[in-house]
Amino acid sequence: MKNTMGNSVALTVFGESHGTAIGAVLDGIAPGIPVDTDFIASQLVLRRPVGSISTPRSEEDKFIIESGVFEGKTTGTPICIVIPNEDTRSKDYGEIRSKARPGHADFTAFAKYHGFEDYRGGGHFSGRITAGIVAAGAIAISALKQKGILIGTHIAKCAGISDREFKDFPADIKALSEKSFAVLDGACEEPMKNAIIAAKTEGDSVGGVLETAVIGLPEGIGEPWFDTVEGLLSHALFSIPAIKGVEFGGGFALSDMRGSEANDEFYLEDGRVQTSTNNNGGINGGITNGMPLIFRCGVKPTPTIGKTQNTVDFIAMQNTELSARGRHDPCIVHRARVVVDSITALVLCDILAGRFGTDWLVK
Amino acid sequence: MKNTMGNSVALTVFGESHGTAIGAVLDGIAPGIPVDTDFIASQLVLRRPVGSISTPRSEEDKFIIESGVFEGKTTGTPICIVIPNEDTRSKDYGEIRSKARPGHADFTAFAKYHGFEDYRGGGHFSGRITAGIVAAGAIAISALKQKGILIGTHIAKCAGISDREFKDFPADIKALSEKSFAVLDGACEEPMKNAIIAAKTEGDSVGGVLETAVIGLPEGIGEPWFDTVEGLLSHALFSIPAIKGVEFGGGFALSDMRGSEANDEFYLEDGRVQTSTNNNGGINGGITNGMPLIFRCGVKPTPTIGKTQNTVDFIAMQNTELSARGRHDPCIVHRARVVVDSITALVLCDILAGRFGTDWLVK
Amino acid sequence: MKNTMGNSVALTVFGESHGTAIGAVLDGIAPGIPVDTDFIASQLVLRRPVGSISTPRSEEDKFIIESGVFEGKTTGTPICIVIPNEDTRSKDYGEIRSKARPGHADFTAFAKYHGFEDYRGGGHFSGRITAGIVAAGAIAISALKQKGILIGTHIAKCAGISDREFKDFPADIKALSEKSFAVLDGACEEPMKNAIIAAKTEGDSVGGVLETAVIGLPEGIGEPWFDTVEGLLSHALFSIPAIKGVEFGGGFALSDMRGSEANDEFYLEDGRVQTSTNNNGGINGGITNGMPLIFRCGVKPTPTIGKTQNTVDFIAMQNTELSARGRHDPCIVHRARVVVDSITALVLCDILAGRFGTDWLVK
Amino acid sequence: MKNTMGNSVALTVFGESHGTAIGAVLDGIAPGIPVDTDFIASQLVLRRPVGSISTPRSEEDKFIIESGVFEGKTTGTPICIVIPNEDTRSKDYGEIRSKARPGHADFTAFAKYHGFEDYRGGGHFSGRITAGIVAAGAIAISALKQKGILIGTHIAKCAGISDREFKDFPADIKALSEKSFAVLDGACEEPMKNAIIAAKTEGDSVGGVLETAVIGLPEGIGEPWFDTVEGLLSHALFSIPAIKGVEFGGGFALSDMRGSEANDEFYLEDGRVQTSTNNNGGINGGITNGMPLIFRCGVKPTPTIGKTQNTVDFIAMQNTELSARGRHDPCIVHRARVVVDSITALVLCDILAGRFGTDWLVK
Repeated sequence: MKNTMGNSVALTVFGESHGTAIGAVLDGIAPGIPVDTDFIASQLVLRRPVGSISTPRSEEDKFIIESGVFEGKTTGTPICIVIPNEDTRSKDYGEIRSKARPGHADFTAFAKYHGFEDYRGGGHFSGRITAGIVAAGAIAISALKQKGILIGTHIAKCAGISDREFKDFPADIKALSEKSFAVLDGACEEPMKNAIIAAKTEGDSVGGVLETAVIGLPEGIGEPWFDTVEGLLSHALFSIPAIKGVEFGGGFALSDMRGSEANDEFYLEDGRVQTSTNNNGGINGGITNGMPLIFRCGVKPTPTIGKTQNTVDFIAMQNTELSARGRHDPCIVHRARVVVDSITALVLCDILAGRFGTDWLVK
Repeated sequence: MKNTMGNSVALTVFGESHGTAIGAVLDGIAPGIPVDTDFIASQLVLRRPVGSISTPRSEEDKFIIESGVFEGKTTGTPICIVIPNEDTRSKDYGEIRSKARPGHADFTAFAKYHGFEDYRGGGHFSGRITAGIVAAGAIAISALKQKGILIGTHIAKCAGISDREFKDFPADIKALSEKSFAVLDGACEEPMKNAIIAAKTEGDSVGGVLETAVIGLPEGIGEPWFDTVEGLLSHALFSIPAIKGVEFGGGFALSDMRGSEANDEFYLEDGRVQTSTNNNGGINGGITNGMPLIFRCGVKPTPTIGKTQNTVDFIAMQNTELSARGRHDPCIVHRARVVVDSITALVLCDILAGRFGTDWLVK
Repeated sequence: MKNTMGNSVALTVFGESHGTAIGAVLDGIAPGIPVDTDFIASQLVLRRPVGSISTPRSEEDKFIIESGVFEGKTTGTPICIVIPNEDTRSKDYGEIRSKARPGHADFTAFAKYHGFEDYRGGGHFSGRITAGIVAAGAIAISALKQKGILIGTHIAKCAGISDREFKDFPADIKALSEKSFAVLDGACEEPMKNAIIAAKTEGDSVGGVLETAVIGLPEGIGEPWFDTVEGLLSHALFSIPAIKGVEFGGGFALSDMRGSEANDEFYLEDGRVQTSTNNNGGINGGITNGMPLIFRCGVKPTPTIGKTQNTVDFIAMQNTELSARGRHDPCIVHRARVVVDSITALVLCDILAGRFGTDWLVK
Repeated sequence: MKNTMGNSVALTVFGESHGTAIGAVLDGIAPGIPVDTDFIASQLVLRRPVGSISTPRSEEDKFIIESGVFEGKTTGTPICIVIPNEDTRSKDYGEIRSKARPGHADFTAFAKYHGFEDYRGGGHFSGRITAGIVAAGAIAISALKQKGILIGTHIAKCAGISDREFKDFPADIKALSEKSFAVLDGACEEPMKNAIIAAKTEGDSVGGVLETAVIGLPEGIGEPWFDTVEGLLSHALFSIPAIKGVEFGGGFALSDMRGSEANDEFYLEDGRVQTSTNNNGGINGGITNGMPLIFRCGVKPTPTIGKTQNTVDFIAMQNTELSARGRHDPCIVHRARVVVDSITALVLCDILAGRFGTDWLVK
């Protein structure tokens, strides 16, 4: 299933950067979930480029809910959300149509679609497609919230500058929900932004790491083979452009530990099984254990940069050079944060609906 | 689809550690692929515990091909492989039935299956299930080899000791195929093994990192959303017990780079588009670019250890202690290597069959 | 996968009769297929109510291709087609909101969606949803045509009046493609239409049987278990409202035959294996044998009728009566024909792309 | 997913008629369901050839439950059931390897699998594969029974002789569960059997119609598009060899009715919504309405017959003749009945688990 994620709750994305519209169809979500268009709009704002640390392309992301919502609530039928493309300057693209941007999908798109792809502005590979994910994800986030399941993602690292770790739930998640630049330690916002601007000034870009926490999940969801919580989440997360690594709990750092150090000891508190550490990120054997679900996504620096790079023209089949003009982001870590939240919510709705039935999210 | 991975080529696993048998059904593989039972057996040997660095439990892993193979070749119909359980000492399990081993799935299995799970020896969560994956994976590896697609995994790190990186294809992969302890630099085998034995002596365990390379893949396979090559591989890889992180190409290290450093410049050689570096691990926009596919799996230290740990009895619901007796591995990194190869082969067969049709692997 | 059909080529439908729009997303179709908007429009015309034998509701079915088409050809990415709802008189629906129309889905929708469904005009259960299927199906039909695969459906029976059987390929299919009221024997058009009008006059409705032929299919597509050609087609066909039976080749009539009579003898002609009869409808063991694929769909009479019927108010939970006012069709057999063609094309594209690869339809 | 049916509850079949074994893997069934091996055995007996109306091949169908059952109950993990092949006389098959039996899958198997298929005794296309379905189906039937959902199938017609219709629930279903030759009206057993023997004597075969009723299903299960109850059931039912038609409720006979006649009027009784007729077979808009689910399968006469038929040798590519020697059934209608029950149970478990969650069947 190419452009669809999920089984019980499924999301299908469509659209090209410079086509008529982009959007998504969310299917399988329980009936009766309130759909708050202001919240959807505010989530889309988080994804939008802002100020000096982003691309100047700026569309309002007006979205149209074509179906599946009636009298302000989900009906249980597919919700199609269309986001028209507006600010599309495509005049220059012919020139660079067949010059592969290093680190980008121009060449692989050509290999896959045999030249029939809409290459303008990255086409179907554009980060703009994530706007549809964010709009649909907002509904999933609302559904989970009703059940006490909260998601928060912070910029754990950007341009080599690290934020503090999660330490206090639900306070940290609540704090993140109110920030457009999502750091737990406000003191690192300025240095991160400066580093982004510095890279931009040099025609370059930076990357970072996003860390996500989910609290309130019931124990016992996920499968041992192959639909582990880790597997289902990573499957979806890797389609966020620029993500090249996903790790849960202690992640790669566990590789250097001893078992006695990495294991999370269990204890009882208030009649609930808990762990004294959370190196497993809330998952044992692919299944939630009731502790916060914790994972990190490694985001590479944005591939489109102003600096001159060697590349090939894959139609003329000759070596050439490329300096990206036009609009591009020196960093997408801060913008990707809401996409990670959205995909996480969609995957969790899918797992929960599969486990507890299609109505669980509401009733 | 719980215990099934793949769409065009699908693998379903079954079995419990101390039940009648474990095994797998491989479906969708092209007809006419030679099935070499000696090769299957030799792959199973790589997964088996050996010598002082592993658990003393040692079964011969006799496997029965129940179906789908005729006159030494695949028929194109489902191949069911059954591996009977033999050396199962289950007498002691009652005692520890409800003491959750820290870092293990005992408690989450109970939460999911409500106490009906076969808890003996880890039941369906046991690493033993991977024997079925390895047996089926051997057929997938053979199929890919016929098309010039080769897979090799080495122990990039174990107990903090690092192997050298891949540098020479296909020589490195060929060398690995002949080693039971898969390191590229033979000089690190002894230190790694000593570190494993040292941990074992202390009733403890160690982890590591496995790095995999695949060469010979055609360009243009994978999808932009959501069935990226990264997403499909990580989905399956995370079901290998103890894997808590997956990264492609430069992975998390890319997060600290500038775009100008992380981007892989394209150039032409012998009429083929190539990249001068491979920080993207052979994948751009979720789709192969023809360069070697490179990824790493972070393996946590084996959770079952001899040292005394605090835990809970989740049936009596009281705090308690646990010192694992019985047989367990101080390290599973070296054994997991063939499982990673196998899952990688299965996922790639699935992607290729979906892209080029069910007969592509043979004809 | 609720509102999605297909694996390699998938269609997702969305929309409610009186919502903002209805539509569909077609994913997985090969790149490079010409998209002829005039042909799409002409197919939509076939589905539209016309003249005295249909409901007076008449919308132009303006469709917007939001994505997946570039320079007149498919790009290989998802094609979202949106068809805005225009002529929606919903003022009267409150009154009959909870009176279950006999034979219709009002009550089951309520049972499933707990009252959150958009009940106006049948909501998501409306036959209007098939417009999205027809628009997407037109692209599938075009793709198949390029490969010499032709589909034709005729009204084998309507209101008890029978058309002649298929007897001449491809002439019969070509003839049908030029008719808006699809009968092979022109002489039965008038009697059928008169019978429809007679029923309408009495506030009643009629049903019929649609028979479909597909020629040009290669041998060897389909699976023995469970994805037989029969199974995949019937799965999709039964979602066309009013279809209550599907049979292949001789169908139910075979039940009364002897084997010696029902079996299709093979013979060679022009170097091809053929059968002298086609009681199996081109399918043996779930797999095509190269003969024309033949099947029939039984269409029940339209449930919404003017005559007074007993029913219940499922919110007030009391017995009541209902006489449908508003617009409704005395017969949908002639309109369903293009929906059957469309679904058939979509299912066949899916099977073919799965069997021969995603590019087969074009290259 | 080739040899797999179902999403939440999935069945994968494997095996060839003359290979090592046949069997099935049942995955996703709730934990805690009692597994009664005697009941499984008794269901397998119903499928087995018996006496003069069947093939003399007679195996005991010993089955081995390899996994997923612990202390007499399902664990919630995959249940692999292996049924070894015993009575396999394959010596004669070389001779007829490439003579296509009319009405059978020999030629289409060759077209699909390129000659690599295990052709002996029908290979993977053999009706023997249904033994695995029946064994797994017995567990599904038990699970449904615990929730008050009962399934019964009778031979509505055989060799042109008709049984009476269902008229009394649950008595009719209970009566059928005690019969090996499933007719509601005992008086038609003898004539049907005589007709079968008569056909056999002439080297011929007969077909029939199976009618199934399911009672106790909750309202509101199924989907409008595309996973209607009709679609999901027919998808699976068409893989039972020889089934060429499936119809629900009034089925094809509705095509000749008026709406006022075909519609099922609703009324209230005991606080429940009911219908006074059941022409829709318990399904409106693809969704259950709480009335008995009723459907019929048309079974063609067994294709393998003793009479001489024209056919082709598809390897030599020449016209030839064939008189089937060896063992074959003059009728499979009475044996297919338990397969229909089994597939129905499996599909319903899948729908129910998807709708109400994976634990619904037990808790």
